[in-house]
Amino acid sequence: MKLLSFSHAGRASWGCMVTQGLVDLGARHPDRFPDLKSFIAAGMPRDVLADLGGPDLRLCDVMLSPVIPNPDKIVLAAINYREAGQDVDKAPAYPVLFLRLASSQIGHGAPLIEPRSSRKLDFEGELAVIIGTGGRHITADRAMGHVAGYSIYNDASVRDWQKHSHQFTPGKNFAGTGAFGPWMVEAGDLPDPKEGLALVTRVNGVEKQRTVTSRMIFDIPYLISYISTFAPLEPGDVIVSGTCTGFGSTRRPQEFLVPGDVVEVEIEGIGVLSNPVQAER
Amino acid sequence: MKLLSFSHAGRASWGCMVTQGLVDLGARHPDRFPDLKSFIAAGMPRDVLADLGGPDLRLCDVMLSPVIPNPDKIVLAAINYREAGQDVDKAPAYPVLFLRLASSQIGHGAPLIEPRSSRKLDFEGELAVIIGTGGRHITADRAMGHVAGYSIYNDASVRDWQKHSHQFTPGKNFAGTGAFGPWMVEAGDLPDPKEGLALVTRVNGVEKQRTVTSRMIFDIPYLISYISTFAPLEPGDVIVSGTCTGFGSTRRPQEFLVPGDVVEVEIEGIGVLSNPVQAER
Repeated sequence: MKLLSFSHAGRASWGCMVTQGLVDLGARHPDRFPDLKSFIAAGMPRDVLADLGGPDLRLCDVMLSPVIPNPDKIVLAAINYREAGQDVDKAPAYPVLFLRLASSQIGHGAPLIEPRSSRKLDFEGELAVIIGTGGRHITADRAMGHVAGYSIYNDASVRDWQKHSHQFTPGKNFAGTGAFGPWMVEAGDLPDPKEGLALVTRVNGVEKQRTVTSRMIFDIPYLISYISTFAPLEPGDVIVSGTCTGFGSTRRPQEFLVPGDVVEVEIEGIGVLSNPVQAER
Repeated sequence: MKLLSFSHAGRASWGCMVTQGLVDLGARHPDRFPDLKSFIAAGMPRDVLADLGGPDLRLCDVMLSPVIPNPDKIVLAAINYREAGQDVDKAPAYPVLFLRLASSQIGHGAPLIEPRSSRKLDFEGELAVIIGTGGRHITADRAMGHVAGYSIYNDASVRDWQKHSHQFTPGKNFAGTGAFGPWMVEAGDLPDPKEGLALVTRVNGVEKQRTVTSRMIFDIPYLISYISTFAPLEPGDVIVSGTCTGFGSTRRPQEFLVPGDVVEVEIEGIGVLSNPVQAER
């Protein structure tokens, strides 16, 4: 099942995709499950997804929100892919992790914002993991049982602000830069990412990044285990699993996004996350 | 006025200090102001704080929570004090900022947790700034008008995990390490920190850090302006303004906290934040 968050006529809701549209599960269960996070926290009970009947809304009539608009935390890994021919021994000992504010997120179709203060907006296509059952000190061998589903993230980054100091915080937290969508595919509906899902990023239709998720340096079980050593994971938490080479600032000459560009991140079995670029007003 | 968050008999609430105790403003205004953040977001209306009468509870009968248990964001500056004799020209160009998860916070009196996975828990006494009126692109000359009040923070850090990579995230986000309290003093009740409030950290009564808030490298107006360039500030947001030298890992030999230690951070005009150290169970 594909689960998603959206707004319709100014009302925030969530639902799931069915043939020819979506079912507005927030409207059908307003008290029990006001948002997708509350549904995940309840263990995604099957009765809610059974006998749905036809769609309540057409996809084109809603504005998609970040898949989880209000996670307790968003933990991101920096570059996390082994490139072809790369020496395995050169892998770092630990993942490089940073945090994103929920308020920096946007949904599928919403504009990535080039801020007034920079001309160095860059893209990073990544696989997002959404936590189902929370926990602390989760061991790697049990970690996959804590995954509710997967989605796509464009961890758009303002490179000059990212390098103002050795901490990435400012460049990774501009408003309108964390694109997250279009939906979450339940874990049971997707092969294990270690089997190798193709992950491709395109700018204006031109391929810029390509890898397969089996090439992660720190795989999903490791990331879940490592993060849960310091912070208890909660239902709806988002782990963004890192990007591969090919983003704009690694290219020669460097390529940054400009207003009017369209960035697409595609992951096999999940879909395409597409966002236009717009200048901050 | 001193405003604080607490729990009493399992109920989360907030209130203010009066002679011989505290007034339970959460109980008096449960619908209008369920938490301190909602009171701040409403502009801290004076009628709520007028004609309070006697206390509802004694301070010793409640458990203090982090002053703002649920901020939208907690942005912290790394070391941010000019030491005596330090060359001003060597100051960095930009502040070093990182984020803390709200779930890593504890209140005054609650234990700082030495995690199972480390023996390098360290202290950092700091001035915390609580945002009143939110905003984006706040200029430095208007920034102080956005401050609701001040409090004390012990940005306790797990040094080995902080250095697993170049990003501080893990070492700054262990559960039970962000001590925040005991209360918030309204901005109007305290001299401007640029006037120089004494800031002292003690471990088991022995002074370890001492500075005055006038020695900040990046002052509060600058921090507010800089942060609001990338992220919109919201009422109740917390800016932790950085520490001075003298914390454990800078000492020779290094000194880390062990279970049974008590860390106190005192700021002139605000009070004393005190937390014992306990091993993770």
